[in-house]
Amino acid sequence: MSEGGGAATPTEGRADADLGTVYLVGSGPGDPDLMTVKAARLIESADVVLHDKLPGPEILDEIPAEKREDVGKRAGGEWTPQEYTNRRLVELAREGKSVVRLKGGDPFVFGRGGEEAEHLADAGVPFEVVPGVTSAIAGPAVAGIPVTHRDHASSVSFVTGHEDPTKEESAVDWDALAATGGTIVVLMGVGKLPAYAAELRDAGLAGDTPVALVERATWPEMRVATGTLDTIVDVRDEAGIEPPAVTVIGDVAATRDRVVEFLRNDRDRGGEA
Amino acid sequence: MSEGGGAATPTEGRADADLGTVYLVGSGPGDPDLMTVKAARLIESADVVLHDKLPGPEILDEIPAEKREDVGKRAGGEWTPQEYTNRRLVELAREGKSVVRLKGGDPFVFGRGGEEAEHLADAGVPFEVVPGVTSAIAGPAVAGIPVTHRDHASSVSFVTGHEDPTKEESAVDWDALAATGGTIVVLMGVGKLPAYAAELRDAGLAGDTPVALVERATWPEMRVATGTLDTIVDVRDEAGIEPPAVTVIGDVAATRDRVVEFLRNDRDRGGEA
Repeated sequence: MSEGGGAATPTEGRADADLGTVYLVGSGPGDPDLMTVKAARLIESADVVLHDKLPGPEILDEIPAEKREDVGKRAGGEWTPQEYTNRRLVELAREGKSVVRLKGGDPFVFGRGGEEAEHLADAGVPFEVVPGVTSAIAGPAVAGIPVTHRDHASSVSFVTGHEDPTKEESAVDWDALAATGGTIVVLMGVGKLPAYAAELRDAGLAGDTPVALVERATWPEMRVATGTLDTIVDVRDEAGIEPPAVTVIGDVAATRDRVVEFLRNDRDRGGEA
Repeated sequence: MSEGGGAATPTEGRADADLGTVYLVGSGPGDPDLMTVKAARLIESADVVLHDKLPGPEILDEIPAEKREDVGKRAGGEWTPQEYTNRRLVELAREGKSVVRLKGGDPFVFGRGGEEAEHLADAGVPFEVVPGVTSAIAGPAVAGIPVTHRDHASSVSFVTGHEDPTKEESAVDWDALAATGGTIVVLMGVGKLPAYAAELRDAGLAGDTPVALVERATWPEMRVATGTLDTIVDVRDEAGIEPPAVTVIGDVAATRDRVVEFLRNDRDRGGEA
């Protein structure tokens, strides 16, 4: 099968020429400077921006109120059902609107972007994916922690601490993750830290394995706290680390201490917890 | 320990006020529009940009020749030793230069960015990390493949197929990666595909596990080829897939077939292999 080639524009000669396009866009970790050039341009040109809270206030506050639609937590503390968001995306596209579905980090990393893409395709709505900087990598990075390292980590695995609550048991195999010998990054992993720290110890990870927590990475109030698998729950409690935060587990987490004196990332955008 | 707070500029009152800063910058997967706003601005303002070939021609060709220094493959086909790059970064900073070390994707994902950060800190050179969009996520994404999915993949692991050749044996535990049950993404994994496809089958992954190869993701000549763990080596050979490419292994790879008809990412930037 061969695609591309011709000079046709995306909608030329198509029956869906009156349909708007939905852009599944990652906003990056929160610092507006870490948005992609394309994300910034699409937000500017879109008719509507559907978002939740994760892009963070610095990015959201710059979007004109009249084109923002919040599909995150609603007034009563309830979450907007995914079905509503799916339906709304299709509805807007059918009105011919150019729609940005803005997600914190990357749209295809624990963001249900894949489900939205499938829903759009099922409904015959053209869409484009605009990848973003994921906080799973950027969170550790701006704290001075490389998620891979030639000497310390030949692989890195991302998991979410905030699993679908309808699942009966965890789909995450902590034993296997521990056995990879690589770095483990847990997104949204503040609340369940005691549970998975215990699982990883049971799986054989040493109690002195370095661990770092990065809260609100790249936001003005970013904070970093470090410890070990044995101490990190106490560190979290003493520092009062709150969501959203990423947890980095592995030898690479110790890199921060070796470089932080000369690291200029979080000097003027926050501090040590 | 508490940092931040005061209004001091990064260099104010410091003994290193005459040192330049080194920015470890990710250029994203190749499409200039997927650079971060900050990366684009730093490339513009830097005195010197040290780079290899991975940022890709569309980004490199826009950088004025007089401030580019290529530290990738040299005339004779030899690689510039990492020690040279480390030394050169320090040298330029000591000349007071503002230095961008530009890396394809994200600087801290299989890019030796961590080693460079440690070298700079050891030499007392201030540095900042500017995360980028990694091709490990963006490559699959622009081909219509989410690396995680609520129904199919609770974790994703990144490994490199291009390990340090001085290592006596592979540090990658393919058995453990297979056991995670999550998506596996191999960067720089074209050449060693037969070896790790066999390792993963031996580790118990089903032969009909979906696999996709994404060559030059987001570049104008991007190509995608899909198969299964059993067929992917033949698919690679028939399509003539060449480096740089990412390999995505797992049920999520089948998402492409379900959405590609309405995916607008690679319509005008390449095609199916």
